[in-house]
Amino acid sequence: MKVPSKHIESAVDQIASLPGIGRRTALRLVLNLLQRSEDEVQAFSDAFTEMKANVHQCKTCGNISDLEVCSICLDTRRDETTICVVEDIRDILAIEATESYKGRYHVLGGIISPMDGVGPSDLNIQTLIERVSKGNIHEVIFALSPTMEGDTTNYYIYKKIREFEITVSTLSRGVSVGSELQYADEVTLSRSLLHRQPFKM
Amino acid sequence: MKVPSKHIESAVDQIASLPGIGRRTALRLVLNLLQRSEDEVQAFSDAFTEMKANVHQCKTCGNISDLEVCSICLDTRRDETTICVVEDIRDILAIEATESYKGRYHVLGGIISPMDGVGPSDLNIQTLIERVSKGNIHEVIFALSPTMEGDTTNYYIYKKIREFEITVSTLSRGVSVGSELQYADEVTLSRSLLHRQPFKM
Repeated sequence: MKVPSKHIESAVDQIASLPGIGRRTALRLVLNLLQRSEDEVQAFSDAFTEMKANVHQCKTCGNISDLEVCSICLDTRRDETTICVVEDIRDILAIEATESYKGRYHVLGGIISPMDGVGPSDLNIQTLIERVSKGNIHEVIFALSPTMEGDTTNYYIYKKIREFEITVSTLSRGVSVGSELQYADEVTLSRSLLHRQPFKM
Repeated sequence: MKVPSKHIESAVDQIASLPGIGRRTALRLVLNLLQRSEDEVQAFSDAFTEMKANVHQCKTCGNISDLEVCSICLDTRRDETTICVVEDIRDILAIEATESYKGRYHVLGGIISPMDGVGPSDLNIQTLIERVSKGNIHEVIFALSPTMEGDTTNYYIYKKIREFEITVSTLSRGVSVGSELQYADEVTLSRSLLHRQPFKM
C-alpha cells in the first residue's frame, strides 16, 4: 500500500522498525496517532526521548534504572552473596514477579549465539567475572533460556568462574507445573525422569 | 510486571495506548527502543510530531495529504463526476491498490453506529451533500463495510442525496473471488444467488 504522504510514510517506517510489527499494522497504529490532538502526539513522542535520556544501565548488574545503581543492587536487605545470571531485563521482571528470589542479578544482555554473530565479548560476561573475583559471592545461579545457546553460555561462564570455588547452579528443568504430561516434549520428559526428585509431602 | 523506572513506565503507557497492543508487548517494544542510540530514538520520536504538524485532511474529500488538497483531488486526469464514499483513509489505499478506479473519493471518517455513540453529525456527511449539490456529480458509489452499520449509513446518505437525481451504487456483494463455496456464510451465499449476474465469457 502506497501512502500519499511522506510524513506518514516515515512514521510508518519508524513503527515498523519495532520487532514483530509489519507495515500494515504500523499504518493502522500511525493513523490512530494522527487522529489524536497535537498535545497527545507530543506526549507520545516525548515519552521515548525522555526515557532514553533518563534511563541508565546499573553500573553493577546491568539492570535498567533511573539512577546509576539499580534499586535491587541498592537494597541492603537482599542477599549480596548470590547472583542470578539472566539474559535480559525482562527476565528480572519475571523472576521478581515470583517473589521467591532475594539475591542480586547480573544481566548479560543476550546469550552466546554464533549463528546471530553474538560472541562472549558482546555480552557483560567480563563484569560478572570481576564481581565474582572480588570474593564475597557464594553462589551463581544460571537462569538463561533452556536452549543450546543458553547451555553454551552457561558452560562458557562456568569455565571462567569455577576457579573461584563457589556454588554454581542452574534453574531446574522438567515438566511445567499445571501442564498435562502427554503434551510435554520428549527431551523435557526424559530429562525430568533423569533428574527425578525425592518425593516430599 | 512492575518496571523499576517511571520513564520506562510512561513509554510503555504510550505504546500500550495504541489499539491492539498490550502492556507486555509494549514493554518488549520499549526495551528494543532503549537499546538504540540517542539519535535513533530522537528520529523515532520526531517522526510522529512532524507527521502531526505537516499532515492535513484534504479540504475537499477528507483524504490525508501533505498539502491542503490531496493528490487525488488535484489529479485532473481523474473523473471528477464520480465520488466513491469510504469509511476510512485505509479504504482509499486498498481501492487505489486495485488500480481499477479512476474517480474521486469522500472519506466519512467512520460509519453511523449508535452502539458506539457515532451519529451522522460526527461524520463528514454534510460536506458530501454539499459536493453533490453543486451539480456536476453523476455517480456516488458507496464503498462502506458490508455490515448493518454500513447499510444504515448508506441508507442515511441515500435519503439525503436522492433528490439530486444522480446514479447511486454500492460495491457488489457476493462470494469472494478464489474462495471455496462451501465456506461462504449463508447470508453472503443467499445474497449472491439473489443478485446472480448474467454469465459472460
